[in-house]
Amino acid sequence: MMVTADDFLFKGLDKAGNTDNSLGLAVTQVFVMQLPGLNTLGISMARIDFAPNGGLNPPHTHPRATELLVVIEGTLYVGFITTNNTLISTTLEKGDVFVFPKGLVHFQKNVGYGNAVAISGLSSQNPGVQQVAKSLFGASNPAVDPSVLAKAFEIDPRLVQILQKKFSAAG
Amino acid sequence: MMVTADDFLFKGLDKAGNTDNSLGLAVTQVFVMQLPGLNTLGISMARIDFAPNGGLNPPHTHPRATELLVVIEGTLYVGFITTNNTLISTTLEKGDVFVFPKGLVHFQKNVGYGNAVAISGLSSQNPGVQQVAKSLFGASNPAVDPSVLAKAFEIDPRLVQILQKKFSAAG
Amino acid sequence: MMVTADDFLFKGLDKAGNTDNSLGLAVTQVFVMQLPGLNTLGISMARIDFAPNGGLNPPHTHPRATELLVVIEGTLYVGFITTNNTLISTTLEKGDVFVFPKGLVHFQKNVGYGNAVAISGLSSQNPGVQQVAKSLFGASNPAVDPSVLAKAFEIDPRLVQILQKKFSAAG
Amino acid sequence: MMVTADDFLFKGLDKAGNTDNSLGLAVTQVFVMQLPGLNTLGISMARIDFAPNGGLNPPHTHPRATELLVVIEGTLYVGFITTNNTLISTTLEKGDVFVFPKGLVHFQKNVGYGNAVAISGLSSQNPGVQQVAKSLFGASNPAVDPSVLAKAFEIDPRLVQILQKKFSAAG
Amino acid sequence: MMVTADDFLFKGLDKAGNTDNSLGLAVTQVFVMQLPGLNTLGISMARIDFAPNGGLNPPHTHPRATELLVVIEGTLYVGFITTNNTLISTTLEKGDVFVFPKGLVHFQKNVGYGNAVAISGLSSQNPGVQQVAKSLFGASNPAVDPSVLAKAFEIDPRLVQILQKKFSAAG
Amino acid sequence: MMVTADDFLFKGLDKAGNTDNSLGLAVTQVFVMQLPGLNTLGISMARIDFAPNGGLNPPHTHPRATELLVVIEGTLYVGFITTNNTLISTTLEKGDVFVFPKGLVHFQKNVGYGNAVAISGLSSQNPGVQQVAKSLFGASNPAVDPSVLAKAFEIDPRLVQILQKKFSAAG
Repeated sequence: MMVTADDFLFKGLDKAGNTDNSLGLAVTQVFVMQLPGLNTLGISMARIDFAPNGGLNPPHTHPRATELLVVIEGTLYVGFITTNNTLISTTLEKGDVFVFPKGLVHFQKNVGYGNAVAISGLSSQNPGVQQVAKSLFGASNPAVDPSVLAKAFEIDPRLVQILQKKFSAAG
Repeated sequence: MMVTADDFLFKGLDKAGNTDNSLGLAVTQVFVMQLPGLNTLGISMARIDFAPNGGLNPPHTHPRATELLVVIEGTLYVGFITTNNTLISTTLEKGDVFVFPKGLVHFQKNVGYGNAVAISGLSSQNPGVQQVAKSLFGASNPAVDPSVLAKAFEIDPRLVQILQKKFSAAG
Repeated sequence: MMVTADDFLFKGLDKAGNTDNSLGLAVTQVFVMQLPGLNTLGISMARIDFAPNGGLNPPHTHPRATELLVVIEGTLYVGFITTNNTLISTTLEKGDVFVFPKGLVHFQKNVGYGNAVAISGLSSQNPGVQQVAKSLFGASNPAVDPSVLAKAFEIDPRLVQILQKKFSAAG
Repeated sequence: MMVTADDFLFKGLDKAGNTDNSLGLAVTQVFVMQLPGLNTLGISMARIDFAPNGGLNPPHTHPRATELLVVIEGTLYVGFITTNNTLISTTLEKGDVFVFPKGLVHFQKNVGYGNAVAISGLSSQNPGVQQVAKSLFGASNPAVDPSVLAKAFEIDPRLVQILQKKFSAAG
Repeated sequence: MMVTADDFLFKGLDKAGNTDNSLGLAVTQVFVMQLPGLNTLGISMARIDFAPNGGLNPPHTHPRATELLVVIEGTLYVGFITTNNTLISTTLEKGDVFVFPKGLVHFQKNVGYGNAVAISGLSSQNPGVQQVAKSLFGASNPAVDPSVLAKAFEIDPRLVQILQKKFSAAG
Repeated sequence: MMVTADDFLFKGLDKAGNTDNSLGLAVTQVFVMQLPGLNTLGISMARIDFAPNGGLNPPHTHPRATELLVVIEGTLYVGFITTNNTLISTTLEKGDVFVFPKGLVHFQKNVGYGNAVAISGLSSQNPGVQQVAKSLFGASNPAVDPSVLAKAFEIDPRLVQILQKKFSAAG
């Protein structure tokens, strides 16, 4: 079987994703599923678009990768939380690069008036993404038992069920 | 410098931890900080004690390890959530062994009437632990901006601040 | 293909293995062959039962793993031998945890009056086990040339052949 | 010692490097030497600026990394050479992403009329860069024996010495 | 499927390769393609024969391996070039062992009057070999654009085309 | 601190080791302790000399490496034992290459009339060597309890003590 340049090529990362959603967020992944030539090579990429005034990449982890992000446009409030529950956060401007170490919960939020765009490199061809709120309150087949979430978040079980409905409706 | 058996020995994992806390939980870590002989060897251990009737190891991740848990006593409702937001859950009895793959959010809850005890092996000498709710709502120096959490969890910012007070008071 | 909780579950590690054999030993493996969900995850587990008064897990290696053992019941005399031929040994009681570094010859012996039980985590999904005496004297297809063993152990070739008969009869 | 956000932050990757040199090239590295927070995390980044009409990142390798490049601006002719001496090449436009597998010789050239800019993720915190021509003809302390290069490139030894002078003068 | 000794055996590394070629070089690889039992084991071997008076293993890299070479017969001028463009070189006699670190350009040349022979261990079952001159000037399907090589080597494009003809004729 | 060629050079692997000992064996290691330039590079080398008529490299393991051996001179009976207690053995002549997979017990014996010499590559800069008989019967500080060895090898405890004396006298 002949290998060609197309096996190593992904097109279109200059196109803004559609941020017309509740988070104001679009993530375009260039992982091994989208770019087969990455197989065994231990790296991948993503473009992240944030709607103006608060577009949010909500708290999430990459179970198998560190993320190294550069701001292409706009202003982002970003942070990750250490295993000692210390928040390491800052505000990034265009051209700033920030590290989100492997497996730690982190987030990015557009705190400027216009769009924001970032490009990230990730240290795995298959980094995985797990949004914390969605995974907990939106998990299905079946849902997480509400008592677990009520106790973990110190909230009323009825609030848990309201949140579970919201997240599962969001699909 | 002479190496002795003490460098490879940790004592006391038969002792129940103190579960007299809001979660009904005690975790005794045998990581490289507690057992220096583990250095470079890629494995560690933990004992987890759960109070009767609902003791909870709340949703958390190990940023650098898979966990392989065996139930020594009691009955546990356990689960992890995949990157497709599917919950993989089951109820474990004494002698059951369950896998929590690297970096994924998971939890264990005592659903029996008595104490529950588990022993886990972890695939790193320094696995790290990140409790999701505590890291997000209890992070300090400074706290996570409430607007991030309000939007991520689709809750009112005032509720976020109430939760942040609870978690930071809990220390 | 759907993944279910059963892919990550192994049942029955609370059951004592049958130690009614010449070594007084039973090892129940929870490796990737028994628990397919461990694939690629770099960890496995085992339960080891020792008959009273001398049940022995004889000198052996795990070619691909470090072992981290906790005593659940009983008293064990354990040790591993360094590449400088120094024995690192101690006596473990219930709740004691001990490290057997990757690839080194090690053993455990019940030195108490009752049964002894241990649980081990191993730093590979496929650690392998190689009992030293059995592999050398019991190897088949064909047997190891007796002259090799006679010289290595500084014993009479006739004794080697007696041992080879014993070990191959034991199967 | 306190860790702060500054340990994970690098500023200024939006600034074009100075391409006023014989290659028409500027590479801004964000490796572990420039961004200490990358230590042990297995990823790094670079910005590459190409002068109009032929700015060239000449054939080079990264001894310890795969490179995943995205074109931010301009048009690049790029390629890598396999161990079977097959050239895998293509022309990239803005938004195109291309993989240069670990350790293989590769190059990028600006084939548009304006500036070209690319951002790369690399699968090591310390990827290393080795420009082929410069390393061979410009190596010092001492230079490579000219007879080696003459035979390897099938050129006259006097030409080798001319090239060595050029490259060592360039410093 | 039965595994036999033949799966782990390669015969004939005592035979000199045919050095009757323009480089005066023969490399006999014992990589995973030649010796399937090496699969997953992270090591391979090669025998290198050099014709008298200048047999040359021209500048090349192993994209995935360090090479550790021992001289069996003869005298070799060897070197590798660091990422700082420093040449680390020396002359090796029979019995001398030298390290060529992972991914770096290196070469070996027979500087004695008789044949020279070396045996190398390599730190990958599939190290790969990339001859620098041949890969750049002899790459095919298609050739590297001459303007790239002219600028990289600071030579006339017509010389590039002459070299490309030589190398592609050599096959 | 300047790096020089001497950091990557080991001299004298052409010299036969002294095989005038009970095993008829000499192993010359080129590990990271002898050749510091191997640090982090994952490979090492050894020369093995065997006295005529039975020189033996007795059953041993490398806890952290696969060994790839080539016969330089003589005839060797070699083998390794799988974790299924199958012996994989053969007779090697000059120029034959054989694989001893990571961590498995293996041996080599001179079965020719003259000297035998082999060169091995090993897949770690610090492979370690553990001779099975010597480690078990010659371990010191303190010795292994004779009852362990008696039961493991199915021999009389008095024979164990005789062997322990022999091996500890040999030092």
